[in-house]
Amino acid sequence: MTSRDKHDRMANAIRFLSMDAVEKANSGHPGLPMGAADIATVLFSRYLRFDPQNPNWPNRDRFILSAGHGSMLLYSLLYLTGYEDMTLDEIKNFRQLGSKTAGHPEYKHADGIETTTGPLGQGLGNSVGFAIAERHLNAAYGDDLVNHFTYVLAGDGCLMEGISQEAITLAGHLKLSKLIVFWDDNQISIDGPVSLADSTDQSARFEASGWHTQRIDGHDPEAIAQAIEAAQASDKPSMIACRTTIGFGSPNRAGTSKAHGSPLGAEEIAATRQALGWEFEPFVVPSDVLDAWRLAGLNAAKHQKAWQEHFNGLDAELKAEFERRFRGELPAGLDEAITTYKRKLSADKPKVATRKSSEMALEVINGVVPETIGGSADLTGSNNTKTSQTKPLSADDYSGRYIYYGIREHGMAAAINGLALHGGVIPYGGTFLTFSDYARPSMRLASLMHIRSIFVMTHDSIGLGEDGPTHQPVEHLGALRTIPNHYVMRPADAVEAVECWQAALKSQSTPSTLALTRQNLPTLRTEHTDENLSARGAYELAPASDADVTIFASGSEVEIALGAREKLKAAGIAARVVSVPCMELFAEQDEAYRKAITGTTPVNVAIEAGVREGWDHLIGRDGIFIGMSGFGASGKIEDLYPHFGITAEAAAAAVQKRLSA
Amino acid sequence: MTSRDKHDRMANAIRFLSMDAVEKANSGHPGLPMGAADIATVLFSRYLRFDPQNPNWPNRDRFILSAGHGSMLLYSLLYLTGYEDMTLDEIKNFRQLGSKTAGHPEYKHADGIETTTGPLGQGLGNSVGFAIAERHLNAAYGDDLVNHFTYVLAGDGCLMEGISQEAITLAGHLKLSKLIVFWDDNQISIDGPVSLADSTDQSARFEASGWHTQRIDGHDPEAIAQAIEAAQASDKPSMIACRTTIGFGSPNRAGTSKAHGSPLGAEEIAATRQALGWEFEPFVVPSDVLDAWRLAGLNAAKHQKAWQEHFNGLDAELKAEFERRFRGELPAGLDEAITTYKRKLSADKPKVATRKSSEMALEVINGVVPETIGGSADLTGSNNTKTSQTKPLSADDYSGRYIYYGIREHGMAAAINGLALHGGVIPYGGTFLTFSDYARPSMRLASLMHIRSIFVMTHDSIGLGEDGPTHQPVEHLGALRTIPNHYVMRPADAVEAVECWQAALKSQSTPSTLALTRQNLPTLRTEHTDENLSARGAYELAPASDADVTIFASGSEVEIALGAREKLKAAGIAARVVSVPCMELFAEQDEAYRKAITGTTPVNVAIEAGVREGWDHLIGRDGIFIGMSGFGASGKIEDLYPHFGITAEAAAAAVQKRLSA
Repeated sequence: MTSRDKHDRMANAIRFLSMDAVEKANSGHPGLPMGAADIATVLFSRYLRFDPQNPNWPNRDRFILSAGHGSMLLYSLLYLTGYEDMTLDEIKNFRQLGSKTAGHPEYKHADGIETTTGPLGQGLGNSVGFAIAERHLNAAYGDDLVNHFTYVLAGDGCLMEGISQEAITLAGHLKLSKLIVFWDDNQISIDGPVSLADSTDQSARFEASGWHTQRIDGHDPEAIAQAIEAAQASDKPSMIACRTTIGFGSPNRAGTSKAHGSPLGAEEIAATRQALGWEFEPFVVPSDVLDAWRLAGLNAAKHQKAWQEHFNGLDAELKAEFERRFRGELPAGLDEAITTYKRKLSADKPKVATRKSSEMALEVINGVVPETIGGSADLTGSNNTKTSQTKPLSADDYSGRYIYYGIREHGMAAAINGLALHGGVIPYGGTFLTFSDYARPSMRLASLMHIRSIFVMTHDSIGLGEDGPTHQPVEHLGALRTIPNHYVMRPADAVEAVECWQAALKSQSTPSTLALTRQNLPTLRTEHTDENLSARGAYELAPASDADVTIFASGSEVEIALGAREKLKAAGIAARVVSVPCMELFAEQDEAYRKAITGTTPVNVAIEAGVREGWDHLIGRDGIFIGMSGFGASGKIEDLYPHFGITAEAAAAAVQKRLSA
Repeated sequence: MTSRDKHDRMANAIRFLSMDAVEKANSGHPGLPMGAADIATVLFSRYLRFDPQNPNWPNRDRFILSAGHGSMLLYSLLYLTGYEDMTLDEIKNFRQLGSKTAGHPEYKHADGIETTTGPLGQGLGNSVGFAIAERHLNAAYGDDLVNHFTYVLAGDGCLMEGISQEAITLAGHLKLSKLIVFWDDNQISIDGPVSLADSTDQSARFEASGWHTQRIDGHDPEAIAQAIEAAQASDKPSMIACRTTIGFGSPNRAGTSKAHGSPLGAEEIAATRQALGWEFEPFVVPSDVLDAWRLAGLNAAKHQKAWQEHFNGLDAELKAEFERRFRGELPAGLDEAITTYKRKLSADKPKVATRKSSEMALEVINGVVPETIGGSADLTGSNNTKTSQTKPLSADDYSGRYIYYGIREHGMAAAINGLALHGGVIPYGGTFLTFSDYARPSMRLASLMHIRSIFVMTHDSIGLGEDGPTHQPVEHLGALRTIPNHYVMRPADAVEAVECWQAALKSQSTPSTLALTRQNLPTLRTEHTDENLSARGAYELAPASDADVTIFASGSEVEIALGAREKLKAAGIAARVVSVPCMELFAEQDEAYRKAITGTTPVNVAIEAGVREGWDHLIGRDGIFIGMSGFGASGKIEDLYPHFGITAEAAAAAVQKRLSA
């Protein structure tokens, strides 16, 4: 068997596993795995450094299937190279409920899946975060510990999505030379030829952003190998345009959109078996081919062995710290530093915006937690995300801990996910809350993947004032709260701000969004507690014996709630105030706590300068809501709150009206 | 006064109005208006065809300030050229509550504001829709009626946002040669020099997508003029990179990020007055300069007069149809065609997916309404957005009514907004509901602008099956319902589907999103009604005398609700079923109707294969919710609904448990 024969048979194993699995599921995308099998075979059998026995080896090369619909390509590779949890039965159960082989690759479903992909462009966006993490950790730990490539397979869809531009330009700017993107240039999208909808010269486009580009026949193994080596040698991120045939091998479907997203059918698969000279039953990989693949897995793993030997000989403290960071555990000392800081806050009672409180909290945190990497989408001074410890991370100095993400909210969020997925770092990044809409597809994936991405969203209401309704979030708190597994945190003062940060950092499997004000707020938590009350999600801030009224509020409106309580008190009405910094954390508390905090007062009020959606579960459909029912307006904050009726007076009056009804 | 002197004084009028307004408001962005004043002066005084007395003239050139934070540039131009509603008092009331001069340009606040901008990249995205509408109407009505340019002023932020790539590539592909973009290349963003975050060769990038590009000194009036003429002559869309100085004229702030987003301060404004030789008090434009500007407005308006004369001489029917389309009124005959079709549906009782029902409805609508322009973000066969009447719109044939938007959900939504804003067409476009996240910033702006954008979102729940949680919307219905002024429609069968379409088309000031299934659904509305019941938002589909239970449901879950009702009936429990195709339309009904539909049964249930948020206002916090509480899973639809407990059995059992508690 010549080397070319062997290559072809190895690649065909991917093709037939993919065809057979899609056929059995009667659902899925055979076209990409068949078209990209040659690229994947060369990469996985000759270049990629990984170890199926140690799938989480920190210095492994990462492979990201940005074109996630081609999931059978990845599952085939994992099975063939010997990942133990990717059994042939899993392949046979492709797309069935409970299998590891979901329709699109799902992070944590199986080893070797580096990120969840499917929404197009996201993997490419993540890859920038992976590549930044690699360079940053390389700067911290040196070539012997962290020095790996990040490979991406992207399709036409990935490159058409706007997020790709944000990812490409950021990667080019940061000269992420260890990032290598294969573009599966098959000229086909779902609606037909790509030429129906696009005429872009992708190579020229990448070059315009400082990328190294090549153009090859994606079915020529030697061309693929040479291109990988040239890309590895380049001092720029690299894009290899691989001209491929979608559904390669299928006599009647190859090269058409019919090969993309549905089973080929028994007849066409039979014809493909004949065309490619593959005489085996469905799901059967002949032993010589399987052996060749398993050997490739073993060869790739040699790098892990060498790395581990080197690592074992290192200083114990260094090893412990490296391992701590990759376990995602926080350093000892953080809790104590936070408690000390909280005590000081309760005494000092600063009156600052929560965006500033957040910066103050970060100043404490970043001093104790060396793995945080901050950033902002061109709103550094507004988001208050930069602290004294975080010098810029740039192409000239990857040791920095602050990323100027540029005006790229979506790309930032996807990169943050990539940083979190890589491990060894804890990423956060900022923009205005209203622009969470731009970042939302990536924020959703952080939730779906159960990773510790932290989003800092300032200017969180009409309280931002004159910039007006385009910049004033109204529906965003409610909309973010609809995302499962996402902590939406809205601290009311400096104490809650640092408590929210502490909770967000401790949350290894739920991402967090901190919603923070532009306007100043007084310190309301003037009595120190060691306990993180915000981590309870909601707590009684101001009690009242025999209360008739409960006022729930979050963030900047807690001050208003306390004002309403005073006004009601003056009118002889007892009201308690519950601060609600995070509904999702509250929902996690035990029933007794939740009942005690929710209370049983006849009148329930919620105050939040956003829409009502999300509050009814606390106040009921007869509850009084003081908030927004439409978009905001451009004007001074002093004019806007009264204009929209979000005042202590309005809240108290609504309660009095209800009680007298 | 030489021509250059005159130009400088006209441009300086913009600069000082902007500086003074920002200073008085103590809030705003002086840098862009000062930097781009020369570009705007040349464009508005020498090229732009518009008429301040007839601001809605259909064939006016459009000017879109994509960099919306530079709003004072636009307000200054509108005042100076003689738009009557843009008074000097409005300029002085910049950014104050109730003024027309909001922080960012707000569509409909004042004449001459073509679109709401501020969220970066949106105006550029809209401009593609404007330019498509222009070419399409040109194809329909000829050069004499529709033949105008669309000019855009975009900043670095617009070009860094991913949406810009989607817009640029679509415009290049469609060869929208009447689209001319000025890039205000001032090399400054909020965090500092653009070079902190970006190294892109923007001209090369635009060229890679088929654009004509030029590079000029943005302060040289003759260079600007020549570039505009070259751009007008090009057969491609055109980008003019204008090197400008942000805050031009300010001795100590020009060319720095300090000029971007805050008042210059009295001292610096005084220094700028001296530097630019402008000896006038704040808000005073000397009469020779104001005269020159007003004359420019009058000159620009001559084109309107000529156009109107030509128009007046045309055939009455043609004129009436043209005017009808630009008024946004639907053609006579639509309602009748829909009623006839509904009668047939109630008789035929098709069992089809609502995405197919939507296509069937569109087949009726597109036959009667010539101004619809459909499309899809590369999911034509899945979104069912193409009908027999809609041949493709392409660079070779702008008369087509179907746009292959490519894999560009965000760019599509922004273009749809631009099409709607242009007038003369009614745009709709499709993608999967889960990818509404990608399009969300533009969908929000459609709501804020009160325009008739229609978004077709199929595969609207776990019912899509094997593609899994990345593709299964769970939170999207709830999240879209949080957006003010947005109809989220989820029809339950073919009758509701056409009713929703009818309501969406009739809604001139609220955009709509139709959420549609992949899976087949039976026809539930088997008794024909002339009335559009879906336009009520919710209605009683299945009554029950002395009902103990009300079951609310939407879309595919209405069938389940009816099933639960049957099971409860068998158990001796009377339940009524309320179909809820659109919560927002329901909220608009009078109180008596709402109370009658909501009812007073002791037990209330909602069934929707999404999250609970949004339903509590109907069922209360003690209501029973049958739906999703987390992400979906990859699997067969037959497995998923039972797995997540969304079945008639589960709903009936929950009711019985409650009643026996």
